[in-house]
Amino acid sequence: MTDVWVAGVGMTPFGKFADTSIADLGATAVLAALDDAAVEPGQVHAAYAGHARTGQLHGRENGVGQLVLGQVGIRGIPVTGVGNFCASGSSAFREAVIAVKSGLVDVALALGVEKLSARAEKGRPLTSDGMEFEGEFGFTPPAFFALVAKTYMSRTGATPESLARVAVKNRDHAKHNPYAQYREPVTVEQVLGSRMIADPLTLLSCCPTGDGAAAAVLVSDAVAARIGRSRLVRVRATSLLSGFGSPVRDGHFEVDRRTAAAAYEQAGIGPSDVDVAEVHDAFTVTEIIHYEDLGLCPVGEGARFVDEGRTAIGGQIPVSTSGGLMSKGHPLGATGIAQVHEIVTQLRGEAGSRQVEGARVGLTHCAGGFFDGDVASSAVHLLGG
Amino acid sequence: MTDVWVAGVGMTPFGKFADTSIADLGATAVLAALDDAAVEPGQVHAAYAGHARTGQLHGRENGVGQLVLGQVGIRGIPVTGVGNFCASGSSAFREAVIAVKSGLVDVALALGVEKLSARAEKGRPLTSDGMEFEGEFGFTPPAFFALVAKTYMSRTGATPESLARVAVKNRDHAKHNPYAQYREPVTVEQVLGSRMIADPLTLLSCCPTGDGAAAAVLVSDAVAARIGRSRLVRVRATSLLSGFGSPVRDGHFEVDRRTAAAAYEQAGIGPSDVDVAEVHDAFTVTEIIHYEDLGLCPVGEGARFVDEGRTAIGGQIPVSTSGGLMSKGHPLGATGIAQVHEIVTQLRGEAGSRQVEGARVGLTHCAGGFFDGDVASSAVHLLGG
Repeated sequence: MTDVWVAGVGMTPFGKFADTSIADLGATAVLAALDDAAVEPGQVHAAYAGHARTGQLHGRENGVGQLVLGQVGIRGIPVTGVGNFCASGSSAFREAVIAVKSGLVDVALALGVEKLSARAEKGRPLTSDGMEFEGEFGFTPPAFFALVAKTYMSRTGATPESLARVAVKNRDHAKHNPYAQYREPVTVEQVLGSRMIADPLTLLSCCPTGDGAAAAVLVSDAVAARIGRSRLVRVRATSLLSGFGSPVRDGHFEVDRRTAAAAYEQAGIGPSDVDVAEVHDAFTVTEIIHYEDLGLCPVGEGARFVDEGRTAIGGQIPVSTSGGLMSKGHPLGATGIAQVHEIVTQLRGEAGSRQVEGARVGLTHCAGGFFDGDVASSAVHLLGG
Repeated sequence: MTDVWVAGVGMTPFGKFADTSIADLGATAVLAALDDAAVEPGQVHAAYAGHARTGQLHGRENGVGQLVLGQVGIRGIPVTGVGNFCASGSSAFREAVIAVKSGLVDVALALGVEKLSARAEKGRPLTSDGMEFEGEFGFTPPAFFALVAKTYMSRTGATPESLARVAVKNRDHAKHNPYAQYREPVTVEQVLGSRMIADPLTLLSCCPTGDGAAAAVLVSDAVAARIGRSRLVRVRATSLLSGFGSPVRDGHFEVDRRTAAAAYEQAGIGPSDVDVAEVHDAFTVTEIIHYEDLGLCPVGEGARFVDEGRTAIGGQIPVSTSGGLMSKGHPLGATGIAQVHEIVTQLRGEAGSRQVEGARVGLTHCAGGFFDGDVASSAVHLLGG
């Protein structure tokens, strides 16, 4: 069975681009990925498009991938739309990996795109599928994760300051990332002093809404040999799991724990082998809890881990070097592939002033549908090494 | 590389079930498929859910598969939502096939579900993504296919009576199918005399809207050997293509022609090897044109083919033995897998009074996004033999 390799990545800057179409956003990312891979549009055998809200926001529940590919002149290949909440991009990446692994195609394209600013402008809360009713009464994602934060803090003694340090760190990383939506440094005081959204989560404790696209080119061993492997990054594991009943157990995310464990088993490595990680930091507290879910630090020590700077660039295991969802931005369908973009950039040693020295193995983690444990999904990919 | 086998199929009746939830529709189909395959819920390693309109009609753009599987107690596996217009179910089936072929999973579940009656009740036209503006002015699918019908008739001399014979034949098949939405026989006069929708397409020349679900269990060689192959049906080819610019060339559907050609090449067989086919007969005229697209009859002879009864049960190559979209119904995401349900039933010799004698190889064909050739998709699967 062939290994699968990331041959190229590309993305748009994340931000608010009300005047740019979904097709144009996607096309920019796809062309950048093809260019990076030195693969011609005509060499792409199959494509998977991740998107989570294009149907409800833009009347495009189907055919988003085709729209994007039509824009760049790729026609006559299998194009499949993939949805999985905030993990839609990760799921598209996964299906592209599986397609190459199946032997049916040699070169597959994963793309993710989302345009949320239209919804943000309407001033209505963006919530999870099936939670519209609760959302109308204020039980939105920040409200849910505020409860998670309270529970975690009371259980572990973590302070609001520790939570805020995630936002400070990720903004500090983002200042070196030209693709990030927010790049101005912030302080703990600024994070804690920003507008309260849902106690203890302030505005700067939450990821922003925005627009953007990302793409990756996956190839088989045969194509990898032809291209030459010097810049290629191997996909070591693709893990996706959904639905474990209650989403939170002992203040932890059950689905993320199990998905990570399955990824490590697939790759035959452990958390200590990971040199750099992009984690689903939709809120400050989630990054901290995910350190523990992913095994990057012992249970209950997530807050201390960020306090001690272990997850900053230069620390023990730098997390969210791109700025993460929190500062780079979180256009749902694009996020999982943008995480791959960052990890590939790091593993190639091309991350410039945010480079993690000697990074060999990287992890991406994206999760979605949190409210309802039966639908919640988590995706973990291990790359490199 | 492993072959992939259909180990079991299941579906709900198609119809209007306003009081049945999407989760319940899906669960009924999944439980039937698992039962048919003699596979326990806990043995399923991955699932793909096809749906095309659950986001815009029901606020469920993500997590439909998880909802359904939660209902039947399947938890903790990868579940991915798949969208591709009317070919969403076929695309979910295809991804399940690819997942087994990749070697990552041994048992994959494909499910498709849709609940359209809510929309039909609102009295607004159901149109293709991105065509809402044109739809408001009446350029809906029937209007588009009426133009296709006019062109086809003027080019080939086909008559309204020939078109109507497709509806008569498929209703005649449906009377033997307990899952079909409409089972009362109709005559050519009734089809031509029913309410005009878009000249020359009358009400009985168009498929209905409705609700329903279908599911299939796919397994690897290793599992097939364990189960015993007597009732298993091999997947010979999975072909999906999108986007060839203009959707119609010389009165034909370019994407369907090419997708079928690729399927035959994959399987190493030709149209004359096909014993039974389920074809995308959304309108009478499309079934006729698809005979030609799929190579079942020479170009320009589709109308004669139905006139002579060649595609009726007992004829040369029976088409839409289930009643087709036209009489069995067309709940978008469910359709492609319901086609597989019919072909598997035929190839096992279990189709009762609609059985095609000696059927060894079957074809399914589903297409979607017709208006815009850049987004149009077609899926062809070859089973058996």
